[in-house]
Amino acid sequence: MVVILKENPNPSQLKNLVEWLRSMGVTVHITEGQQQTILGLVGDTSQIDIDLIRALDIVEDVKRIQEPYKSANRKFHPKDTVIQVGDLKIGGGHFQIIAGPCSVESEEQILMVAEAVKLAGGTILRGGAFKPRTSPYAFQGLRGDGIKLLIKAREATGLPIVTEIMDISQLELFSDVDIIQVGARNMQNFELLKALGKINRPILLKRGLSNTFQELLMSTEYIMAGGNEQVILCERGIRTFETYTRNTLDLSAIPVLKILSHLPVIIDPSHATGMAKLVPPMALAATAAGADGLIIEVHNDPEHALSDGPQSLTPSAFALLVEKINRVRQALA
Amino acid sequence: MVVILKENPNPSQLKNLVEWLRSMGVTVHITEGQQQTILGLVGDTSQIDIDLIRALDIVEDVKRIQEPYKSANRKFHPKDTVIQVGDLKIGGGHFQIIAGPCSVESEEQILMVAEAVKLAGGTILRGGAFKPRTSPYAFQGLRGDGIKLLIKAREATGLPIVTEIMDISQLELFSDVDIIQVGARNMQNFELLKALGKINRPILLKRGLSNTFQELLMSTEYIMAGGNEQVILCERGIRTFETYTRNTLDLSAIPVLKILSHLPVIIDPSHATGMAKLVPPMALAATAAGADGLIIEVHNDPEHALSDGPQSLTPSAFALLVEKINRVRQALA
Amino acid sequence: MVVILKENPNPSQLKNLVEWLRSMGVTVHITEGQQQTILGLVGDTSQIDIDLIRALDIVEDVKRIQEPYKSANRKFHPKDTVIQVGDLKIGGGHFQIIAGPCSVESEEQILMVAEAVKLAGGTILRGGAFKPRTSPYAFQGLRGDGIKLLIKAREATGLPIVTEIMDISQLELFSDVDIIQVGARNMQNFELLKALGKINRPILLKRGLSNTFQELLMSTEYIMAGGNEQVILCERGIRTFETYTRNTLDLSAIPVLKILSHLPVIIDPSHATGMAKLVPPMALAATAAGADGLIIEVHNDPEHALSDGPQSLTPSAFALLVEKINRVRQALA
Amino acid sequence: MVVILKENPNPSQLKNLVEWLRSMGVTVHITEGQQQTILGLVGDTSQIDIDLIRALDIVEDVKRIQEPYKSANRKFHPKDTVIQVGDLKIGGGHFQIIAGPCSVESEEQILMVAEAVKLAGGTILRGGAFKPRTSPYAFQGLRGDGIKLLIKAREATGLPIVTEIMDISQLELFSDVDIIQVGARNMQNFELLKALGKINRPILLKRGLSNTFQELLMSTEYIMAGGNEQVILCERGIRTFETYTRNTLDLSAIPVLKILSHLPVIIDPSHATGMAKLVPPMALAATAAGADGLIIEVHNDPEHALSDGPQSLTPSAFALLVEKINRVRQALA
Repeated sequence: MVVILKENPNPSQLKNLVEWLRSMGVTVHITEGQQQTILGLVGDTSQIDIDLIRALDIVEDVKRIQEPYKSANRKFHPKDTVIQVGDLKIGGGHFQIIAGPCSVESEEQILMVAEAVKLAGGTILRGGAFKPRTSPYAFQGLRGDGIKLLIKAREATGLPIVTEIMDISQLELFSDVDIIQVGARNMQNFELLKALGKINRPILLKRGLSNTFQELLMSTEYIMAGGNEQVILCERGIRTFETYTRNTLDLSAIPVLKILSHLPVIIDPSHATGMAKLVPPMALAATAAGADGLIIEVHNDPEHALSDGPQSLTPSAFALLVEKINRVRQALA
Repeated sequence: MVVILKENPNPSQLKNLVEWLRSMGVTVHITEGQQQTILGLVGDTSQIDIDLIRALDIVEDVKRIQEPYKSANRKFHPKDTVIQVGDLKIGGGHFQIIAGPCSVESEEQILMVAEAVKLAGGTILRGGAFKPRTSPYAFQGLRGDGIKLLIKAREATGLPIVTEIMDISQLELFSDVDIIQVGARNMQNFELLKALGKINRPILLKRGLSNTFQELLMSTEYIMAGGNEQVILCERGIRTFETYTRNTLDLSAIPVLKILSHLPVIIDPSHATGMAKLVPPMALAATAAGADGLIIEVHNDPEHALSDGPQSLTPSAFALLVEKINRVRQALA
Repeated sequence: MVVILKENPNPSQLKNLVEWLRSMGVTVHITEGQQQTILGLVGDTSQIDIDLIRALDIVEDVKRIQEPYKSANRKFHPKDTVIQVGDLKIGGGHFQIIAGPCSVESEEQILMVAEAVKLAGGTILRGGAFKPRTSPYAFQGLRGDGIKLLIKAREATGLPIVTEIMDISQLELFSDVDIIQVGARNMQNFELLKALGKINRPILLKRGLSNTFQELLMSTEYIMAGGNEQVILCERGIRTFETYTRNTLDLSAIPVLKILSHLPVIIDPSHATGMAKLVPPMALAATAAGADGLIIEVHNDPEHALSDGPQSLTPSAFALLVEKINRVRQALA
Repeated sequence: MVVILKENPNPSQLKNLVEWLRSMGVTVHITEGQQQTILGLVGDTSQIDIDLIRALDIVEDVKRIQEPYKSANRKFHPKDTVIQVGDLKIGGGHFQIIAGPCSVESEEQILMVAEAVKLAGGTILRGGAFKPRTSPYAFQGLRGDGIKLLIKAREATGLPIVTEIMDISQLELFSDVDIIQVGARNMQNFELLKALGKINRPILLKRGLSNTFQELLMSTEYIMAGGNEQVILCERGIRTFETYTRNTLDLSAIPVLKILSHLPVIIDPSHATGMAKLVPPMALAATAAGADGLIIEVHNDPEHALSDGPQSLTPSAFALLVEKINRVRQALA
């Protein structure tokens, strides 16, 4: 951490600050220039509240040099984390394709899609039971019943299941879910993250629509600090001024998060783009950039057009995509 | 709602679509051009899922003409809503200045600040008990004890109190809080909003860091649809590429939200800018733009610099600001 | 400037770096910690290319402490700059209201608007002659003829004139224009800025739609480094995800630019919001926040609706606004 | 185009509007509902100024249905455009790798890099002669001399050259340049675009940092409307709130621009990310997403660390990347 002082700092205030910093266990080096004095802090500065120092009269600015997150930091854990989901692994070279409908609608639907996903080469089943919808008048999901249907689909196909939690009070209903998803809008629902830190289950944590990589890793820290180290990071598009696509998929998330962290990184091209025809190119791009997996919306019933999501692939388009994904992975192996 | 069809739509699909739309109770007018066919839908389209229609093969685009929110919509409720808080009113010409510390730290502190706020002309006391902090290692607030101290400060000064809720499970602790605040990060915590719709208490709802005005009003709809119509809207800065200020305070929120909605609109210049020296000019700007109130951080103990927040005003700076706010209000009365 | 080194830097590379930095005339202090070594650079670092150092193998990051701009920097020029325009002054407490039509359309129109602006209390006349339009098929302005008409309007009313330049090749036509405007899209047209640095005329420089305050001041530096120190800074809205308003007016520009720089700061609420009904509240907000002036679109012919710009005020709405602006200024004087 | 009227529009104003629209040659269909009246306009609406209509008293909103650009629109030109550069082609399945240093620094440097680029499989040489630099104190490029050195490098290697123009006045110096680049900051320098529309040379047009796809295509229209149809579109990162990467590379540009337009689309991962280690994954991602080419920074002199750009690849890293790019292309062929 570097503390930049205002010109001609009050000497007694400076002395107090330096003593206080040293009392926190950090080493302080003072660089005095004609115009500018700089304090260089070395040691463990993660406990120091940067805002407190910035508030001091004699301080112009404070710049953090070490990342404020530890558990997810690759510096302290150089090896890739591999997360076990049933018989499958994610991360460290293990690649999984998660697929399924936006919402679980009925037993018939989820079984049909689950079979199609499995047949096409998908390895994990997704499906929304609790749906975060912008409008209170929109379909809010089958909730607990949706989870039961997902479990039936797992029994029928053997595919592990992932579905989204929206509130701590729902946690009990997730006791037999393989991966618990935290949606973009809940990335900084810190009370929920704390609760998920206390269970022993993989968490799929989506980056918020306007959150930075560092904030994603700080939210991860909420989970990992509680003892649950099984976190899968997911980029699903950020909000920009562009209006043609629903959001802007930031694929630099893959190499950046793999530099900063040891956790697996997966990509959701369906929610990011909001348009089925953009999903295959972005899924292939994510694969080529080194993602550890994908999460893709696949729907069941192309005949009954009214229930198609505009961002969902048909099973046959999905099957074709899986084949291309595999070819890209082989080309770069 | 306007549905724009692709060139040469399949006639039987078109017929199906029109019949389905009419079965939903809306009137459909067809405008056929050489290249383009447009369906004009009139009537109550708020129940129609725009995504379902957009997904149809023959549809190129769908444009909503009516706003998707009703309860907060000024079109259906032209008169300003006035919200009662103890003996005070907010909205419809009633202006309140909410002030207090970022966090409740101790009984001594909150009592001291509450007295200072009252003396300077503040009319409602704010103070954080549950603190949403980016880092799990940062101070998380005094939680339930913080609320008890706020209540003591109310007893001592007569100022109503406002404080932030972070999770449904905390709701019981808020039974004696005058205004319940929902923070920017929880603006789309839909389960929490639903729960707050079922109680009879004013809700101060902050706009999310990357949310639009329409999304803010849709979140309001979650509360109002549950029966609680006492919502105060709050702009507290949005995330942009600018890094000098913490966020970018969007003061157009004041006239825009007052055009779209009948609810009171208040401004938080402290969190938006993150710097005490920017608070007075932005507070005066918000006042001149017609805000119904302000929420401003004031701290207690300028001697003990380490506990100052960099965005908090001293009591004397706050008193000076209140005086100027009153002068601007009189000039525009 | 602070240089943060990677762990265990190669000693001979470190020695080379330190020697090279010292050869540039800066003093280098080395802070060695167990994990981290930091170099503190003091002295004149404005000539050091931060990207070159960041590229070095042994360097993890470089953080600039001093601002990279000098001429516009308040640290080196604490007194407000006052710019003379004919008999008027802008800055240092002098406030001017610039008003006029989006485009100069005809002699009749510009004379009529100029008279109305003057009558209402406007002090400088604006009008577009060269129009930057997104579409090549849209009206591109009267160009040279438009400037001649503005000059006629100045002769008729005595109001100084401001109009926008789009290319160096047009400079000759601006020889009798009082203030030359550089539009948001040209804020980083560095060749144009260099050319404007060599003339002796006030320049009104608009912040780009996605530019930071620092970048605006760096563009200012291009003009001032050439010898022309008469620069008026203008905020006109930045691009965000919000779509209701055309852009998001960032009024924190006023206090921030006045902290960082000694130059006058004016606000353009018309282009920022794109809606006439939002102009008065935002103009009053800008005034209350301490702007040195406003630039507002006023049109001439409310009867002939087709030529109204949706963001222009009628002369009577403008007159009412000027009166309120004056009341706010008096209230805060 | 759809015109949405306010409730209870004045009948004579409505009649005037409809007549005026019909006089412009468009067909107008009126859909009257109880609350809302909608005008459907079909025919060629590209000449109608949407802002004029929006400004009318009786109009609530106007929504454009057809894209406002024509020349670049795939609807009117379904076949991919293939652009000829010397013996090479770009677009329509032809893929080119443009590479070279950020700036041309010396004859020795540019010849060395050009040979390395060619050896590694690069097919076009890039190098900056005119450099748009944020600071006037930074190196501004070798300008005319830089172009001469690029021509020498072309003579030595046979690689066609691309370099950036910053102002119309420089156009003469570009008479022997194979592809003229327009940088992101000049994407809306409309006077420059018009001038480039009148010459017969491929133009590489970069998307601005905060510009939409539609605006990029409107800028393309400025060039193509002048008669020069050889435009290569380039995505180079947009500005977002994320600060770890320099900009956010929006790879959805590839499928989106190929849906909207028939022009070739290339990607610049070097400027977008600003970090050499992020270039290979993003270049591979762009290839997998279907880009028609890449533009990558390669530097010459890894020994002389001070001249490395942090975003440039070494020749050997570049060679390795080219090999992987080819493997991805084969896998998806």
